[in-house]
Amino acid sequence: MQTRRVYLDNNATTMVDPEVFEQMKPFYCEKYGNPNSLHKFGSETHPALRQALDQLYIGINAKDSDDIIVTSCATESNNWVIKGIYFDKIASGEKKRIVTTTVEHPAIAMTCQFLSKFGVEITFIDVNDQGVITPQQLREVMSDDVALVSVMLANNETGMIFPVKELAKIAHEYGALFHTDAVQAMGKIPVNVQDLDVDFLSFSAHKFHGPKGVGILYIKDSQPLSSLLHGGEHMGGRRSGTLDVAGIVGMAKALELANKFMAFESSHVRRLRDKLEDALLEIPDVNVIGDRKNRVPNTILASIKGVEGEAMLWDLNRAGIAASTGSACASETLQSNPILEAIGADKELAHTALRLSLSRFNTEDEIDYAIAEIKKAIARLRSISSTFAYAPQGHTSGL
Amino acid sequence: MQTRRVYLDNNATTMVDPEVFEQMKPFYCEKYGNPNSLHKFGSETHPALRQALDQLYIGINAKDSDDIIVTSCATESNNWVIKGIYFDKIASGEKKRIVTTTVEHPAIAMTCQFLSKFGVEITFIDVNDQGVITPQQLREVMSDDVALVSVMLANNETGMIFPVKELAKIAHEYGALFHTDAVQAMGKIPVNVQDLDVDFLSFSAHKFHGPKGVGILYIKDSQPLSSLLHGGEHMGGRRSGTLDVAGIVGMAKALELANKFMAFESSHVRRLRDKLEDALLEIPDVNVIGDRKNRVPNTILASIKGVEGEAMLWDLNRAGIAASTGSACASETLQSNPILEAIGADKELAHTALRLSLSRFNTEDEIDYAIAEIKKAIARLRSISSTFAYAPQGHTSGL
Repeated sequence: MQTRRVYLDNNATTMVDPEVFEQMKPFYCEKYGNPNSLHKFGSETHPALRQALDQLYIGINAKDSDDIIVTSCATESNNWVIKGIYFDKIASGEKKRIVTTTVEHPAIAMTCQFLSKFGVEITFIDVNDQGVITPQQLREVMSDDVALVSVMLANNETGMIFPVKELAKIAHEYGALFHTDAVQAMGKIPVNVQDLDVDFLSFSAHKFHGPKGVGILYIKDSQPLSSLLHGGEHMGGRRSGTLDVAGIVGMAKALELANKFMAFESSHVRRLRDKLEDALLEIPDVNVIGDRKNRVPNTILASIKGVEGEAMLWDLNRAGIAASTGSACASETLQSNPILEAIGADKELAHTALRLSLSRFNTEDEIDYAIAEIKKAIARLRSISSTFAYAPQGHTSGL
Repeated sequence: MQTRRVYLDNNATTMVDPEVFEQMKPFYCEKYGNPNSLHKFGSETHPALRQALDQLYIGINAKDSDDIIVTSCATESNNWVIKGIYFDKIASGEKKRIVTTTVEHPAIAMTCQFLSKFGVEITFIDVNDQGVITPQQLREVMSDDVALVSVMLANNETGMIFPVKELAKIAHEYGALFHTDAVQAMGKIPVNVQDLDVDFLSFSAHKFHGPKGVGILYIKDSQPLSSLLHGGEHMGGRRSGTLDVAGIVGMAKALELANKFMAFESSHVRRLRDKLEDALLEIPDVNVIGDRKNRVPNTILASIKGVEGEAMLWDLNRAGIAASTGSACASETLQSNPILEAIGADKELAHTALRLSLSRFNTEDEIDYAIAEIKKAIARLRSISSTFAYAPQGHTSGL
């Protein structure tokens, strides 16, 4: 019997939409020229690249006067902003501080930590029990020595949405620039850079059914920012490296499709997510982090008392279901879920995280199957748990 | 009538070998999991990734104790080394100088120029009339304040091979680290990191029939180097960003094939290149830069008196032939060829550069066609040239 394959780890990465891959295919063995070359092999890539840039600008509602610079991923974009600001504003002595949160992606957190060795002061704002920060929390730590505020748009583990528009406004009041890592928002909620009024925004294509290895940094009004990748004159001299035409075309198509499916995401995907979440919440001593009204429609981060997260993944994996205990970027070591720790869960509970993240490719049947298998796994693991001994505290229906 | 398509711009970028693309295909819509994930969708990418890493280690003869870190391209790798050394050795005050040449790729040159604003002293060594530097030239500028020497293995425009093994030895005598940008050597000459004994080596896959958007930084003995892309725990914590499995698999396969075709490269490709070069040299007032014995087997950089480079490209492009005036990384502006300037050509001659770069996919018939078309173009352009008025100085046979 063939094991089923149910992919519920879309916050880690997504399947490339076959329609996206179709668009990419010609740019490997046929239209392979370097777009910067002055001949037909180069210029025959231009229509597709122009269309891709149009799709990207439209996709986030950027103005013509803004820059959308293609990078290799949001990690590069995030490093670029933080390090660019370091060189432009802090190494020069103009400002001295970067403000961020305790739950940013490691691409922000580790970059800040690295630069703190070179004299940058970093202020990490704690999240509240919803896993977000409030505008008031930002206001309390602001002063005119802040060069940059960097706060994610949606959290990778909880899916909780941060009040980026309000946060950006506060940063600007203090003369600071504002960056948001929008990786986990793309394709899940509308992302409109003019409405958010951020200076910089990062994302990766592979989180919304585009290819791996390509992302963007949006730069409002094409304002100055020292390059992270210096070199040739690619991307107006802002980011060097031969353009990955296939990747760019794929990313742009994926964004177009993501926006086309936005209503579907917030109806169908949300309904399946809610169904799955409701089923989890019927199980005693299962909690889900964050108000679902303020969450992207595809994500559940649950803590399941008495069930060690990695053991849960193991059982689900045997049933062909892919999930995670949190960020895939740090999943090679057995560790507690950092966001559960950040919102104040005790150490034991932080080891019981289960993240389920859906996509538009999930079906009702898959969710029904997942609910049944998760219930089975919880029952089995609670019955054998020693490290995470389970003594029911809530009602006991069904389990 | 269909225009012919003859691609002689392989130093700018190459066609992905169809066999390479075949290997990449499963990793878009089928095996799309994040390799860092703890489930089947992630782990089913591991055999291909392990094989790819094996192919990369074997491909450059790296030791198990070395690191081969996947990046988005050689531009990233080059920026990484230069900026890593800046943070590790120069910002700390341990050393103060980086030594390089006047003909490096902009990814080295512009990065050095950027860091010179932050207190790094850069020594640029001039190339000789062969377009290379000698060990003696390096020795003359060395002292123990040098943190890093960075010299390319083969030049992108001339194809001339630098004496990297000897240069690395000298750098080490002075306690400096040595980096080589091997982008233009890969697939053209054997690259053996143990023989070269370099500390760092960069390349991009798309220069040897692999995909765009992926490259490596080789790090001897896994020695410390501050990351350029901080973040998650990918690549042993050295380079963050979700792994582009398709790209990595493609790069590794491309390297395997490049090494498999190395003998073919130095026989068939070299013979075709020599045939083309001999034909060019029969034309009066045409010069080719650098001794072909010390050049990669696929490259010709010619100066054609009286023929403006961009006009030449235009004529060739109409005949379906792709060539360049030099590096594609700087080809969007009409400018003189920097290496011709670097080796002391006068300004007028530096505007007459024509670079022809072959690959294993070129046929004898294509070369015969190119020879005929280049002759036609030279005759036509010399006859109408005003800016680059042509008065024959050599013999006049055939034209």
